[in-house]
Amino acid sequence: SNNFFLLSGPCAIEGEDMAMRIAEHIVTITSDLKIPYVFKGSFKKANRSRLDSFTGIGDEKALKILRKVSETFKVPTVTDIHTEQDAVMAAEYVDVLQIPAFLARQTDLVVAAAETGKTVNIKKGQFMSPESMKHAVNKVTETGNQQAMITDRGTMFGYHDMVVDFRGVPTMKQFAPVVLDVTHSLQQPNQSSGVTGGRPSLIGTMARAGMAAGVDGLFIETHFDCANAKSDGANMLDLGLMRKLLTDLTAIRNTINGLV
Amino acid sequence: SNNFFLLSGPCAIEGEDMAMRIAEHIVTITSDLKIPYVFKGSFKKANRSRLDSFTGIGDEKALKILRKVSETFKVPTVTDIHTEQDAVMAAEYVDVLQIPAFLARQTDLVVAAAETGKTVNIKKGQFMSPESMKHAVNKVTETGNQQAMITDRGTMFGYHDMVVDFRGVPTMKQFAPVVLDVTHSLQQPNQSSGVTGGRPSLIGTMARAGMAAGVDGLFIETHFDCANAKSDGANMLDLGLMRKLLTDLTAIRNTINGLV
Amino acid sequence: SNNFFLLSGPCAIEGEDMAMRIAEHIVTITSDLKIPYVFKGSFKKANRSRLDSFTGIGDEKALKILRKVSETFKVPTVTDIHTEQDAVMAAEYVDVLQIPAFLARQTDLVVAAAETGKTVNIKKGQFMSPESMKHAVNKVTETGNQQAMITDRGTMFGYHDMVVDFRGVPTMKQFAPVVLDVTHSLQQPNQSSGVTGGRPSLIGTMARAGMAAGVDGLFIETHFDCANAKSDGANMLDLGLMRKLLTDLTAIRNTINGLV
Amino acid sequence: SNNFFLLSGPCAIEGEDMAMRIAEHIVTITSDLKIPYVFKGSFKKANRSRLDSFTGIGDEKALKILRKVSETFKVPTVTDIHTEQDAVMAAEYVDVLQIPAFLARQTDLVVAAAETGKTVNIKKGQFMSPESMKHAVNKVTETGNQQAMITDRGTMFGYHDMVVDFRGVPTMKQFAPVVLDVTHSLQQPNQSSGVTGGRPSLIGTMARAGMAAGVDGLFIETHFDCANAKSDGANMLDLGLMRKLLTDLTAIRNTINGLV
Repeated sequence: SNNFFLLSGPCAIEGEDMAMRIAEHIVTITSDLKIPYVFKGSFKKANRSRLDSFTGIGDEKALKILRKVSETFKVPTVTDIHTEQDAVMAAEYVDVLQIPAFLARQTDLVVAAAETGKTVNIKKGQFMSPESMKHAVNKVTETGNQQAMITDRGTMFGYHDMVVDFRGVPTMKQFAPVVLDVTHSLQQPNQSSGVTGGRPSLIGTMARAGMAAGVDGLFIETHFDCANAKSDGANMLDLGLMRKLLTDLTAIRNTINGLV
Repeated sequence: SNNFFLLSGPCAIEGEDMAMRIAEHIVTITSDLKIPYVFKGSFKKANRSRLDSFTGIGDEKALKILRKVSETFKVPTVTDIHTEQDAVMAAEYVDVLQIPAFLARQTDLVVAAAETGKTVNIKKGQFMSPESMKHAVNKVTETGNQQAMITDRGTMFGYHDMVVDFRGVPTMKQFAPVVLDVTHSLQQPNQSSGVTGGRPSLIGTMARAGMAAGVDGLFIETHFDCANAKSDGANMLDLGLMRKLLTDLTAIRNTINGLV
Repeated sequence: SNNFFLLSGPCAIEGEDMAMRIAEHIVTITSDLKIPYVFKGSFKKANRSRLDSFTGIGDEKALKILRKVSETFKVPTVTDIHTEQDAVMAAEYVDVLQIPAFLARQTDLVVAAAETGKTVNIKKGQFMSPESMKHAVNKVTETGNQQAMITDRGTMFGYHDMVVDFRGVPTMKQFAPVVLDVTHSLQQPNQSSGVTGGRPSLIGTMARAGMAAGVDGLFIETHFDCANAKSDGANMLDLGLMRKLLTDLTAIRNTINGLV
Repeated sequence: SNNFFLLSGPCAIEGEDMAMRIAEHIVTITSDLKIPYVFKGSFKKANRSRLDSFTGIGDEKALKILRKVSETFKVPTVTDIHTEQDAVMAAEYVDVLQIPAFLARQTDLVVAAAETGKTVNIKKGQFMSPESMKHAVNKVTETGNQQAMITDRGTMFGYHDMVVDFRGVPTMKQFAPVVLDVTHSLQQPNQSSGVTGGRPSLIGTMARAGMAAGVDGLFIETHFDCANAKSDGANMLDLGLMRKLLTDLTAIRNTINGLV
């Protein structure tokens, strides 16, 4: 397949049933559309604004659910890590270790992830330029691990807003495959409530623009019940909208592939 | 045609020969691709950073060239205006009056343009939000002139850079047809030399993303000899690259049209 | 006096009584504190977000009030201009012509102001860097008029906010005397209502910081009844707070003067 | 003393001699000026842009030097931590644990620091609003540790620049004592070299503005040989300039204290 690849799933692993249900739904679609698919789920949330935000159901428990998804549906999985110990632990269960955007500059963490031999997906810090991701990727490749990816989840634009700068796509593709995180890049941070806001109605616009700009993959958080999701509900895609979105994006991708 | 429309031409009208040559080249392409085309050329440049920058060949002379282009190739024309007197004068020669981004908040100017009965293309100020363009468009329509357009040429991002925020496309389409200015939006202003820089290698990326995001039209400055153009040479598209670009964009547009 | 100078008055001249009342109040204070004072009032407002915003009481009428203030209290006056004709007209009545921030890049306007021989106060565009004000000042001085001033009223920071960058003070002092506009720099533009917001409770903080950073002058809009002012009420200083503020700032200025 | 307090020292502990030499110099000055002083030094640098940047002389070794400085000069010390284990380890040696700006949102780290009972100095993330620091401080205080401080080291302004927003000072003082980091806030990040730039000539301007804006303390990195410092040399204050700076700032502080 020459289609884009997809990292998608719920923000956090809230339990086995929800994870399996979401995975099954997406696997059916991506199989139809020949989209290489990686199931995404956080096993813990460590960087919430507020202390009383949901942080997870237990590390081991969540990681085992990720493994079960992988074994059941024959898809690779990705989860985000926050410490060097996380890297070692999560590497036992998943295929891709993701460095959160806030931690993209933490050398020890990036190196620890790289040394597991797993693919390392580094989210571009909201405070980093596309060009500066070269150094982040180098921290992976200099360990001998050539499996690095970059995910753009937007850049700070004033205190309460983020913007995606599509000029960065060709720049970052020089360093590694580039993924656009269409759900987090629509966040509106630093809201006075301490809960990050979002604009999910713009997911289609953002994803289409990214596809046309030449991204290699997309990152989309989703849930069948966004309103009751335990984290980031304000900016996930409703699972029921996934097939239409991926079908449209595949059409754009096919057009782009035919240009050159 | 259900294709996008195009505003294109040189930054400034430097003389009749160059204007006719550029127009003829673009007309041939847009005719082939069924792209509704408006020839663009500034009859004077009034907001240069430095006093010693090129400002024009004479107002009347430049406007007459615009009229000749229009009559020769049967295409409408657009030029930018800086004063209420400019509005009245230019309306004698062109079909679309363009409000420069820096002047998008000047009520008297916008109203004067609207009162000529010509189409008014308001560039979004680099300091304005997509939402705030509603008020700018209202200044046109409240005169009884319903022919307003909005052109996005990017938004300030730090002192020396601009970014295009594609979230603004669906927002601004609620108010008027939306054009993406793919050449000026790649500018890098406030350079220490007093001459604005640019990144023309990114024109294709920016235009593709805009097309996929749903813009109604594109604005592209071009020249057959960008290096020697009298203004904005740093961010124009080489005329020789126009056919390939418009062909690709038409393909993307056709795909987008088929989605719904 | 080695004190800072002050440009202050209401946003718009709403009538003679209010202008005289405000002028008298400030003259009394600045006389006590040995602060060189320039009375400020706009004779029209031409760049409002919305068409239905207040724009003035009549140009000639407002300008005559400015002259009366000047003659009555023996103070110079400043007003902002939006066209070349405004420059010529206003120069008959006032001592300082002010170029609005949105218009700081309009060469013809700046040159027209300079050619009146009056002092020209250029507000730094919200989209301009401190360094780029060099070119703006040059447009004045190259006419032979050496009386240029720069006023900083903040810089765009996302769509809905502005920030004052005090690094710009020493930079811009290389080009001309630097004034900090402590009321407009606290604006929050592009609000959905089409009416600019503000944070007047921070005027003291901003003014103190500016004084310590070395500004030559301050610009403060004020009214005895901000809630009912016809423009910019959201960010003016209540006239009753002026004496305490200027007294405090004079103390800081005296301390700064003693350092070197 | 009603003077401001000072966190100051080299960026990284490069060895005992340099640490003692810097500490002695500053202790002499702060003792003269009655400035409460906390010696600052990083025991390791974990978030460098490039893998080949200096990261430290050894954790234990550096921490012992911090203790020696403390015991020799009878001053408290501060160092920054990057992991929960760092918190426990460093708490054995220093009085204040500092959360780096990039890590200001890492809940586990902030809580681990708080639970040591030491004072926790949280640097405001370059991507955080002043208001959002309320939640960060709450993560400390909700453990029962009331000793939190906030240090502002600037906010992202485009990709390659930072700005200090002094409006944040009164906002953040509602949550905890506020320190202005006058050296890091002058950084210019994401330079193409992978080495952060800076503008040390503006340290005086920034510190004076901060003092007048009402900060409780200042953070100043310094070295007697900035050109050869192993990290952040581009934005440290030359040690020889420290006395004049602190003397001037004390004068401003005394003036501010007298206002109310």
